[in-house]
Amino acid sequence: MADQPDLSRRRLLGYAGAGAAVGAAGFASGIGTARATDGDTGSADRYPFHGSHQAGVLTPAQDRLHFAAFDITARSRSELVMLLRRWTDAAAAMTQGRPVGSGTPLPYDSPPADTGEALGLPPSRLTLTFGFGPSLFRDADGRDRFGLADRQPRALRRLPHFPADLLDPARSDGDLCVQACADDPQVAVHAIRNLSRLAFGSAALRWAQLGFGRTSSTSTRQATPRNLLGFKDGTANLKAEDADAGEHVWVRDGDDDRAPWLAGGSYLVARRINMSIEPWDRTSLSEQERLIGRDRAEGAPLSGGQEFSRPDFHLTGSDGQPLIATTSHVRLAHPSQNHGAKLLRRGYNFTDGNDALGRLDAGLFFIAFVRDPDTQYVPMQTRLSRDDGLMEYLKHTGSGLFAVPPGTRPGEHVGQALFAGG
Amino acid sequence: MADQPDLSRRRLLGYAGAGAAVGAAGFASGIGTARATDGDTGSADRYPFHGSHQAGVLTPAQDRLHFAAFDITARSRSELVMLLRRWTDAAAAMTQGRPVGSGTPLPYDSPPADTGEALGLPPSRLTLTFGFGPSLFRDADGRDRFGLADRQPRALRRLPHFPADLLDPARSDGDLCVQACADDPQVAVHAIRNLSRLAFGSAALRWAQLGFGRTSSTSTRQATPRNLLGFKDGTANLKAEDADAGEHVWVRDGDDDRAPWLAGGSYLVARRINMSIEPWDRTSLSEQERLIGRDRAEGAPLSGGQEFSRPDFHLTGSDGQPLIATTSHVRLAHPSQNHGAKLLRRGYNFTDGNDALGRLDAGLFFIAFVRDPDTQYVPMQTRLSRDDGLMEYLKHTGSGLFAVPPGTRPGEHVGQALFAGG
Repeated sequence: MADQPDLSRRRLLGYAGAGAAVGAAGFASGIGTARATDGDTGSADRYPFHGSHQAGVLTPAQDRLHFAAFDITARSRSELVMLLRRWTDAAAAMTQGRPVGSGTPLPYDSPPADTGEALGLPPSRLTLTFGFGPSLFRDADGRDRFGLADRQPRALRRLPHFPADLLDPARSDGDLCVQACADDPQVAVHAIRNLSRLAFGSAALRWAQLGFGRTSSTSTRQATPRNLLGFKDGTANLKAEDADAGEHVWVRDGDDDRAPWLAGGSYLVARRINMSIEPWDRTSLSEQERLIGRDRAEGAPLSGGQEFSRPDFHLTGSDGQPLIATTSHVRLAHPSQNHGAKLLRRGYNFTDGNDALGRLDAGLFFIAFVRDPDTQYVPMQTRLSRDDGLMEYLKHTGSGLFAVPPGTRPGEHVGQALFAGG
Repeated sequence: MADQPDLSRRRLLGYAGAGAAVGAAGFASGIGTARATDGDTGSADRYPFHGSHQAGVLTPAQDRLHFAAFDITARSRSELVMLLRRWTDAAAAMTQGRPVGSGTPLPYDSPPADTGEALGLPPSRLTLTFGFGPSLFRDADGRDRFGLADRQPRALRRLPHFPADLLDPARSDGDLCVQACADDPQVAVHAIRNLSRLAFGSAALRWAQLGFGRTSSTSTRQATPRNLLGFKDGTANLKAEDADAGEHVWVRDGDDDRAPWLAGGSYLVARRINMSIEPWDRTSLSEQERLIGRDRAEGAPLSGGQEFSRPDFHLTGSDGQPLIATTSHVRLAHPSQNHGAKLLRRGYNFTDGNDALGRLDAGLFFIAFVRDPDTQYVPMQTRLSRDDGLMEYLKHTGSGLFAVPPGTRPGEHVGQALFAGG
């Protein structure tokens, strides 16, 4: 059905309009990395599902997130593959604005194939990005669950314990993950709900996270958003337009002799980072800026200039101290201080109510895509967790590492190469 | 500062554009009930804060919600009034797109007056609607906490226990409430966070609820959205354009001899209604439509016609049974079946993760505004809780009733008439 973009939710409901037409044109741009030909402006309302890479990685970050991790309850490899086939068909439909199962009408006395709450809504640039956790390959006792252990990527293991980690197992890990991003949260929630439903009997939702606002720009056409500390963060983030973006994000042929199936894929790092909002809000602006290493109003580095000026880590003030403190976040996270390591940040602000003392349960759901977590993420996070002055206001409460298989071509299922010929 | 709309966040940051100009024009439309002159299309980006009624009631429902209830920790009436003054100033600023405290620059070594995460964002039609719970007037032991007991509105008491209520005290009640609605969730979250911060030492957040998608249209210019059951609901909802809307929503002079201060105000009913998503999703479409009393695709009543056709509750099918079942939601909730009682629904879909079995914690955060809860809400909910077939799939897990004071005029604080001359 993926080649029938005219069967959109709008059309099914008898609507027609400019949005639908533009969307169809966007789809016709065809196979390949998802891309927005018009940047940030919202006139193209869908991204292609099929392609050589999965969408939702170098795709300009959408406004809202629903992230979900699943535990597989299926006992056999064939049952797992069936699940991935169902998910693939549903993802191909939903990302194009069609309801699940739209190709196969059901009798009136059956439960509807689609849960319905996105009927009439545009695709809202929905992307669904799938990942495989280390436990898919070997369980906690080291058992090869689905005959995949010899294909486990070498870098795919639980992230190490970082200093000051306070991880909640109920918000960490998982056999499978799905990142749903869309400009309308109802569309993202609808997608995760329908994938959960299709998983019934084969996989169960382990944990999920809603993110209400993107905290990263992944395109030079997007303004840098603010995190809940009130600062622009990730200004130096890798952008889709950067000539070397693919090099830092996509696994290449030959990167991993054990997992050739991962070429064209990536690794997804997820970290739920709670912010100590109330203490932060009682900190002076000068101290906040010192901890971040940028000014708050513009996001300019404290060494001077504007937001996108290159930070000068050598420049000192009248007191002889570096203008950008040695323990500042911007210094410790900057590629120039991390052997050139860059990552594609694609995180979201979250708020999950409050604790019994009335303190907000809020922060950053950090997501990053990297070609190799062992060189691009682990060393940097080790340094940040140990030395970043900001850590006084941060608590890492959830964690996951997932291998993101390459894109899916029409007729294939998500992760097909992992299972092929096994 | 409320008369200086040009001090918007955009301007402070050096932006200028059509949005800001339109917003200023919207502000100039001045005192009165908040209204969108252009309906749903997003070109006017702010609503006035001051007026004879509070905004956020008959205002066309914005897309996102952050609702918060607070427990007062202040010991004295003057401290409570100080809090309401701080909240009023902050609300007047934030709804117009200005940061908290923008009129009074602080020294660099002070904590910033505003937490910053909405800097650079447009006002996003933010409205802040304040309410007073029964416990503000008398605590659980009946004590008159702030010398206000003789002014407690007669209808302002905890809602009665309805059949099948499963209320969580940690998600119910509160001395004060604030409903923040905006088209950008970051703007709504920013507002509640800054009000919580201003309350430090005088009131503590008791519970909060994020809603990601509006489930009601409150204007004839808005399409009816879908709830998480996949259905359009509240089609017969009161609309701001209805000639009798004010009559059903606003308390009138003489309604309550004990609370003349409430004239021009309203009552806010809040109910957190969990939906049993997974069982619902396994129910046949025919059964779902029977329970609701409308078809899913269009939202037309099962007696025929289109979405806005008047349901015919007498029409029977070939089996002699009413086409709209006697236990259907649309019948039991319809004004014609409730002595003409109408309410203004202004609820939101929510999703708060999942339970340990992987079941979604999701549903409807129901909000309604009524002139008199004793005639417009309590009888209808009693009937629904007892007879509505849909109750098999619903669990009421939170509840609150609040008196919403009338609007605030420049120079006044929220709820000023309640405290005047006491």
